[in-house]
Amino acid sequence: MKLKVYADRLSQPSRAVIIFCKVNGIDFEEIEVKLANREQHSPEFKDINPMAKVPAIVDGRLKLFESHAILTYLSCAFPGVADHWYPNDLLKRAKIHSVLDWHHSNLRLGTVKYVFNHKLAPVVGLPLNPEAAAKGKKILSSSLSKIESFWLKGSGRFLVGSNQPSIADLSLVCETMQLELLDEEDRIGLMGPHKKVQQWIESTKNATRPHFDEVHEVLFKVKENLQKQQSLGASSGSSSSSNTTLH
Amino acid sequence: MKLKVYADRLSQPSRAVIIFCKVNGIDFEEIEVKLANREQHSPEFKDINPMAKVPAIVDGRLKLFESHAILTYLSCAFPGVADHWYPNDLLKRAKIHSVLDWHHSNLRLGTVKYVFNHKLAPVVGLPLNPEAAAKGKKILSSSLSKIESFWLKGSGRFLVGSNQPSIADLSLVCETMQLELLDEEDRIGLMGPHKKVQQWIESTKNATRPHFDEVHEVLFKVKENLQKQQSLGASSGSSSSSNTTLH
Repeated sequence: MKLKVYADRLSQPSRAVIIFCKVNGIDFEEIEVKLANREQHSPEFKDINPMAKVPAIVDGRLKLFESHAILTYLSCAFPGVADHWYPNDLLKRAKIHSVLDWHHSNLRLGTVKYVFNHKLAPVVGLPLNPEAAAKGKKILSSSLSKIESFWLKGSGRFLVGSNQPSIADLSLVCETMQLELLDEEDRIGLMGPHKKVQQWIESTKNATRPHFDEVHEVLFKVKENLQKQQSLGASSGSSSSSNTTLH
Repeated sequence: MKLKVYADRLSQPSRAVIIFCKVNGIDFEEIEVKLANREQHSPEFKDINPMAKVPAIVDGRLKLFESHAILTYLSCAFPGVADHWYPNDLLKRAKIHSVLDWHHSNLRLGTVKYVFNHKLAPVVGLPLNPEAAAKGKKILSSSLSKIESFWLKGSGRFLVGSNQPSIADLSLVCETMQLELLDEEDRIGLMGPHKKVQQWIESTKNATRPHFDEVHEVLFKVKENLQKQQSLGASSGSSSSSNTTLH
């Protein structure tokens, strides 16, 4: 039975899992769980993941959620996956676990908190929350600095000094792509000071093309819609965000 | 060269790593990094972990932080560690990664946010924050419910249906021990509805005694001090918490 991947391409961890499967030639079926329609709360999906979050997979009798756990599992379960994604070497693997664990309460927390409270909340009918956004932006900024100064230290093009991408690069770069939803000036303000981070994102894109671009198409469509709504709102003088929809 | 563990036993992930080493007969040197003295910000420690967090380890040329990554590494690097802590079986291992990843943004986030903002903030000179505490308590409550209804589903005494403890049990149970710092009534209110969670904590304690109790002694001393300060405060009619110190 073919691997099933339950995902919404607007979710950054969903994109990481889909890109990973495509890059590694893993035969899978993608099942869309539309977050905008709250499909993650359907009884059918909660039977796969009772936490009501995407992505999740079903592989034979295994039901699994949490994207890092999924990427780790796929790296080991599918023999065609090249070693650099999740190295057998104990020390390299330990460092990858370290950056993946760090991700949760740093880059991920900051990105989600900032982008949601500063930009996306009205899309699901909630008000923007400047205080929460400010907290998120602080965590996000500090996380980008740490990637620049620590995780990308050394001569390697990828995280923890590697010359080839790992599941950590894919996971964290998909996270940074969420910043595309911000206003251009804001995004440049955040990313501008971090030259190594910018190069690393480009290197990860290059290593996973054309799949990276294809899987991110939907994100850029949403970006376009947000911009249209915003300029319409600006010209009519009304707030646009409450009319923005994800699809 | 002997494994070095940099830790403060008041930090729940530090305790998990220390207990793991002791239970598995790993020869290690424990180096105390006193959080109350802000020793995690010293240049010496930031050379080990630039994120200024405990625990961290040094094993030969490897410097590693993030407790889950450390527990995973130690399970693989020390051949004396029994398989049940971090099973070789791919499916069992995947489930353990899933619960460890889930931990970050759920049980851990809720516990830290609630216990700190409701009880410990004055210890480091910050005011209590009832609004943040309420948010933390909600996440904590929901996390305990999910452990009860999902992670402890089935007949196994431990997480994900196992009959023997894994690194996930140790990590999550050490987290729940932080609730000992709450007032008794509050703690019972949180834990009371969750019979399986209570049994699981007992099973994990039993499987790791006498080390579990010994490593938690310092937590119970702090609890005692907090209670003393509180009753002194109550009898003198003044707020006690700002006089409470961790040591």
